[in-house]
Amino acid sequence: MGGAMKRSGTRPAMTVADLEAFLAEAFPQAAPMRLAIEHVDARTIRLAMPTGEEHLRPGGTVAGPTLMALADCAIYLLILAQTGPKALTVTTNFGINFLRKPEPGRLVAEGRLLKLGKRLAVGDVLLFTPPAEEPVAHATVTYSIPPVGDRGR
Amino acid sequence: MGGAMKRSGTRPAMTVADLEAFLAEAFPQAAPMRLAIEHVDARTIRLAMPTGEEHLRPGGTVAGPTLMALADCAIYLLILAQTGPKALTVTTNFGINFLRKPEPGRLVAEGRLLKLGKRLAVGDVLLFTPPAEEPVAHATVTYSIPPVGDRGR
Amino acid sequence: MGGAMKRSGTRPAMTVADLEAFLAEAFPQAAPMRLAIEHVDARTIRLAMPTGEEHLRPGGTVAGPTLMALADCAIYLLILAQTGPKALTVTTNFGINFLRKPEPGRLVAEGRLLKLGKRLAVGDVLLFTPPAEEPVAHATVTYSIPPVGDRGR
Amino acid sequence: MGGAMKRSGTRPAMTVADLEAFLAEAFPQAAPMRLAIEHVDARTIRLAMPTGEEHLRPGGTVAGPTLMALADCAIYLLILAQTGPKALTVTTNFGINFLRKPEPGRLVAEGRLLKLGKRLAVGDVLLFTPPAEEPVAHATVTYSIPPVGDRGR
Repeated sequence: MGGAMKRSGTRPAMTVADLEAFLAEAFPQAAPMRLAIEHVDARTIRLAMPTGEEHLRPGGTVAGPTLMALADCAIYLLILAQTGPKALTVTTNFGINFLRKPEPGRLVAEGRLLKLGKRLAVGDVLLFTPPAEEPVAHATVTYSIPPVGDRGR
Repeated sequence: MGGAMKRSGTRPAMTVADLEAFLAEAFPQAAPMRLAIEHVDARTIRLAMPTGEEHLRPGGTVAGPTLMALADCAIYLLILAQTGPKALTVTTNFGINFLRKPEPGRLVAEGRLLKLGKRLAVGDVLLFTPPAEEPVAHATVTYSIPPVGDRGR
Repeated sequence: MGGAMKRSGTRPAMTVADLEAFLAEAFPQAAPMRLAIEHVDARTIRLAMPTGEEHLRPGGTVAGPTLMALADCAIYLLILAQTGPKALTVTTNFGINFLRKPEPGRLVAEGRLLKLGKRLAVGDVLLFTPPAEEPVAHATVTYSIPPVGDRGR
Repeated sequence: MGGAMKRSGTRPAMTVADLEAFLAEAFPQAAPMRLAIEHVDARTIRLAMPTGEEHLRPGGTVAGPTLMALADCAIYLLILAQTGPKALTVTTNFGINFLRKPEPGRLVAEGRLLKLGKRLAVGDVLLFTPPAEEPVAHATVTYSIPPVGDRGR
C-alpha cells in the first residue's frame, strides 16, 4: 500500500538537507527522535525513526503519542518544504485512526499533501512498521499558515 | 490524484450488481441520491452522484452534509462488498476535511479500505467534482461490524 | 448530561427570530428539516428536529447523515448568532462519534462554542433523542470565517 | 468553562491511589511526565502536569504531541477507573482541535466519559493552561476494550 502514494517530480522550496538543518536549529529538543527524512517532493514526504524501549507501552506496542508525534511532524515538514521555513505554522486539527499493533524497531511515515491554501494546509499520513506491509495508523493533519506578523489561529 | 489509488484485482464477496440490489431493497429512501456504483474490488470503491439545486448552499457550493453522506456510503458499501450484506454494520466515527469549493454537477467518491478487522473496519475517501482534479474533501470512516445477534457498538 | 452545558446570559448578535429569518431566506432547501431553534446565547445553542421514516436506516436507527447535518447546522447557527449573518462561513473540519442507537421521534442538538477566532471558530455538539438521557452522538466542528471578499478556506 | 463538567458522586472501581500505583507499575516510562491525578469519579477525571523547556516549540508554545499525550492519558485512566486495570485497552481513534496558544507552566486536562460500552469507550477532554480560563485544546478519544484473550481492535 505504501507504493500507492504517487510521488511528484517537482522540486519543493526546501530539500531534505534544508529541512534537516531547519529541524536541528529550530527544534533541538527533537534530536532524541533521531528522525530521518528519507524523501520529500511537492506532494509527498517519507520519514523514519527508530523505536525502542522508551516508546513502548504494555503489550510491546509502540505508544500512540509516538505515532501521533511522527505523523504531525511529517505534515509539518511537508508543508515547510513547500512554503519555506515558517516556524510559527501551527497544527489546528489532528485526527488519527490506530489500525494494527505497531511492532517496535522502525516506524515509517508516508505523508501526502491534500491542500496547500493561503491560510490552511491539509495532509494525511500512513504509518508503517516494516517489514509489515499493512499500515499501523492513518492520520489527517490541518495546519494554519500564519500571515506575516500573525499567530495563525 | 484520483489515479493514485491502487485497485485490487481480487474479487470481493459482493459485485456492483449485488450492492445495487442490496441498496434498493434495504435503503429505498436512498433512491433520490441516484447513486452510481462505478467500481468495487477488495480494496477500493468508486461512487458517483449527480448534484443539483437541492444539494446547494449559499455561494453555489455543494452542501457539506451531501459530501458527508456520500463518503459514509462509500465506505459502507466497500465494507459490505467484502463481508456480504450486513445491514446492521454501523458507523462509529466519521471525520472529514473540506478542502475546496465543490462545483455542482457530479460528485465522485473514491474509497480505500485501510483495515478490515473482526470488529472494526476503517477506510478513507477522496471526493472530487470532475473535471477538477484536486479533491474537494477527504473523509475517514470507522464502521463497527456486529457479531451475530449484537448491535455492534 | 445535557444539563452540564453552562448557558451564558450575554445577548448574542442574532436572536432566535433573526436566525430563523436568515435560514428561511438563505437556505430555503433546509425547510424540510423543520428545525426548531430552541435557545441561543453567547456560548450555547439548542436545536430540535422531528425524525421520521425518511431519516431511518435498517434497524430503525436515525441515519448518520441526519445526525451530521443537524450537528453541523447547530455550530453554524451558533457562530452566526455571534458574528451576524455571513452566509459564506464554511465548515473546514467535521468529526463525529456515534455513541448509541438514536431512536426516531425527536432529535435534539446542544452546541457549545469552544473558540471564536478571527479566522476559525470551533464548537462541539451533543445529540440526544429524548427522553433518553445519554447522548447518541458527539460532534466537533470547525468553521472558517471569511474576511470580506474572500472564500474562507 | 472548566466548571461546566458535572462531576459524579459515584465511586469508580479504581481510586486515584489505585491509578497512580497502576501507572507506576505498568508505565514506568511515563514517570518523566510527572502526572498528577487530581480527581476521578464515574464520569470525569482531572489530570495536571508541569510543562517546561522540553515541551516547547518555536514561539514558546507547548508542543502539540505533549497536549495529545496528556489528553489520551486522561481518557485511558478514566476508563480504567471504571473497568479496573486492563493494560491492553487501546486507543482506536483520537482527534484534537488546537484552540489557543498554550502557555508553559502547568497543563490541566478535564476528561468526561461519553460512552462506556462493552467494546468501545468514548470520552472528550478540555485542556487548559491556568490561570487562563479558555481551553487551549479539545480532544475526543475512542478506546477499544478487549475481551479476555483478545487484542481489541
